[in-house]
Amino acid sequence: MNNNNISMAVIRRLPKYHRCLGVMIKNGKKRISSKDLSEVIGFSASQIRQDFNNFGAFGQQGYGYNIKELYNEIEKIIGLEKDYNMIVIGGGNLAYSLVGYGFGNLGFKFKAIFDNDKSIIGKKIYDINVYDVNILETFISKNKVDIAIITTPSDVAQNIADRLCISGVRGIWNFAPIDLNVPEDIMLENVHMVDSLMTLAYLLNDKK
Amino acid sequence: MNNNNISMAVIRRLPKYHRCLGVMIKNGKKRISSKDLSEVIGFSASQIRQDFNNFGAFGQQGYGYNIKELYNEIEKIIGLEKDYNMIVIGGGNLAYSLVGYGFGNLGFKFKAIFDNDKSIIGKKIYDINVYDVNILETFISKNKVDIAIITTPSDVAQNIADRLCISGVRGIWNFAPIDLNVPEDIMLENVHMVDSLMTLAYLLNDKK
Repeated sequence: MNNNNISMAVIRRLPKYHRCLGVMIKNGKKRISSKDLSEVIGFSASQIRQDFNNFGAFGQQGYGYNIKELYNEIEKIIGLEKDYNMIVIGGGNLAYSLVGYGFGNLGFKFKAIFDNDKSIIGKKIYDINVYDVNILETFISKNKVDIAIITTPSDVAQNIADRLCISGVRGIWNFAPIDLNVPEDIMLENVHMVDSLMTLAYLLNDKK
Repeated sequence: MNNNNISMAVIRRLPKYHRCLGVMIKNGKKRISSKDLSEVIGFSASQIRQDFNNFGAFGQQGYGYNIKELYNEIEKIIGLEKDYNMIVIGGGNLAYSLVGYGFGNLGFKFKAIFDNDKSIIGKKIYDINVYDVNILETFISKNKVDIAIITTPSDVAQNIADRLCISGVRGIWNFAPIDLNVPEDIMLENVHMVDSLMTLAYLLNDKK
């Protein structure tokens, strides 16, 4: 999926680095060695050095990493220096959770919510308008939409995904418990909550 | 974390097998070769055979897999043949999403919700009672709780996790955007939504 050699495993560790370093900055910490970072974050020190080498070397032998510099660099790598316009398809409980979550602080901005339920169309979820899903394509053609979030029931999720792809949306964040088919140039991230819960069930049984 | 040799990578693929095979059963399909399953699920045929070999061989050379048999076996491996009692700490939007999600069909049963907000204590979220978080330990001592779900703000999540662990809860499903410290014998699964969103942001930039 990537056009360079950074593995998805490395990429998926970046947000955790971002979160840990953010906490350190908040606590007034300035520098950290890969050994100390390792203890906080739970990855090995050599893993950490390898990960950072993927993006150029940020540390100095014997001096460790400048936390703020490293944090800023990871923000740039992830792409957090800019804003992302997001829409949500499906105006149920999950839409409330997501809009109220605070992603805006990271630059992820909610622009519209779409549903087919006449009783909520025209209303707002927090300060975001709920529109008829019939105007989804029109909205996308007139507004820059970077990420569309699918929170619909499973049985309509693929149809919504198809409509989004045809409309030119390149990023889909899917919460419907279904494996969507999208073209290769569409970036799809799934939050399959059931998968996580099942993993937990397995682990609970495995330990008995 | 596991007391046998099955890797977390294999375990995390099980729910996807479960979901895909479930769809096939619903569509009336009886048998499938690892090659055909590979096309549907997106793992290689040899990966699929390897995964299933971890738990004993379910397929017959040339006949493929009996879908219903395989599905039942995966249910047993994950531990879905029994019920799990769950509580939620934090009675906000996410609690609504989770209680309303439909996990009950899989055997994951909500028993109670806890919050410190007097305006919701004593009310219900769907049909589940919201209790004062002060009685968390008492509730756990009197009721079998398999999984506790943390949906609180980050700044109290570690304290809640500590209280759960001391009370004897062995499974924690954490939605707070923080990396919790728990003893090794506690099974912790995180749904870090921000991590998933950041990964999507990275991928969107990477493709440009």
